[in-house]
Amino acid sequence: MGGAILCDIGNSCLHFYYQGRIWRENPNDITQKKEHIPIYYISVNSNFEKKLLDSHKKCINLEPYINLNTSYVGLGVDRRAACKALNDGIIIDAGSAITIDIMESGAHLGGYIMPGIASFQGFYKSISSALDVTPDFSVNLYSPPQNTRDAISFGILKSILLMIKQTSNTKKLYFTGGDGKFFAKFFENSIFDNTLIFKGMLQAIKEIESQKS
Amino acid sequence: MGGAILCDIGNSCLHFYYQGRIWRENPNDITQKKEHIPIYYISVNSNFEKKLLDSHKKCINLEPYINLNTSYVGLGVDRRAACKALNDGIIIDAGSAITIDIMESGAHLGGYIMPGIASFQGFYKSISSALDVTPDFSVNLYSPPQNTRDAISFGILKSILLMIKQTSNTKKLYFTGGDGKFFAKFFENSIFDNTLIFKGMLQAIKEIESQKS
Repeated sequence: MGGAILCDIGNSCLHFYYQGRIWRENPNDITQKKEHIPIYYISVNSNFEKKLLDSHKKCINLEPYINLNTSYVGLGVDRRAACKALNDGIIIDAGSAITIDIMESGAHLGGYIMPGIASFQGFYKSISSALDVTPDFSVNLYSPPQNTRDAISFGILKSILLMIKQTSNTKKLYFTGGDGKFFAKFFENSIFDNTLIFKGMLQAIKEIESQKS
Repeated sequence: MGGAILCDIGNSCLHFYYQGRIWRENPNDITQKKEHIPIYYISVNSNFEKKLLDSHKKCINLEPYINLNTSYVGLGVDRRAACKALNDGIIIDAGSAITIDIMESGAHLGGYIMPGIASFQGFYKSISSALDVTPDFSVNLYSPPQNTRDAISFGILKSILLMIKQTSNTKKLYFTGGDGKFFAKFFENSIFDNTLIFKGMLQAIKEIESQKS
């Protein structure tokens, strides 16, 4: 299925994958793809999904085929796809929310959700105008902060890093999402891979193909 | 100065202290105190401060006397007062925000700020309607979550606990504020003391008195 276009429809944009290349498109400005190439997609946003379907006839929703060995109830299709790409490791998808999922021997053991760093910024402001400062994520994480900006930056960044470290144990960390590259820098046993979701989708397509034959 | 009334004016209410007793009052419904008893106060809310001053003549703002040995720029007067109550230890004031401050040998070494657990709840909802669930803080913190509610509760609670634990090292933990009792339960080397701010204010009054004599 090297010839298929893959599309991950999120809440801010559409991510496309074709033969190893990835790019994002605005839902209101989707470029026309070649008609003979099928588009396999997953979606967490029905409005944007409709825009893809309106503009392209040959679209196949892969959601029913993104199977994952898990007891987790209500795992989003994008998280399922990213987890499906791995047999062992921690998958951290760092965007407006940060999802952290644990894979072991091909099974999903569970996961949790933290706010993303961009989201956190607005949160402090809403608690008190005294906390309305722009965080600085180059803050020293090994020395107690000495002003409000550092106190907030430290609170956001260190809490997320401690959670990831604690979850990691000895497992390898696979970062993806808009802030994935930023977080990956903090860990030695880490990989940044923005194609994880697409790898999971390709795996699902492979399973469909093998069942056909 | 056992005969003085102390008042800590916050962003939701006024906390009073008199001879070991503490109670809270609504800023729009402040009870009349005996005229001959002086009221010493600190305030982080100028509107509520005005309401106290309008209703009571003998009020003394203690803020200029809440001195603390610190390099921290912009430490709120309530945090300064709570820190002043201790020579050594970690002070965790858990309310709509959670402030964590480090005292060592009478000096304030720094501190940081996290959102409070009640604040966090609204944050997730604002990221995505799929995250609009009421957290359950009895969640198992030692097993990977298996649904959205647990995934969010785990993300909130465990990140705060890990930060406090990491800061604690071997120092004693002093919890105060609305959620202080809840958090204190999670640590062996902890004390819940809702009078910390007042103890710091009493300390400041003692310093004023000793300078007079």
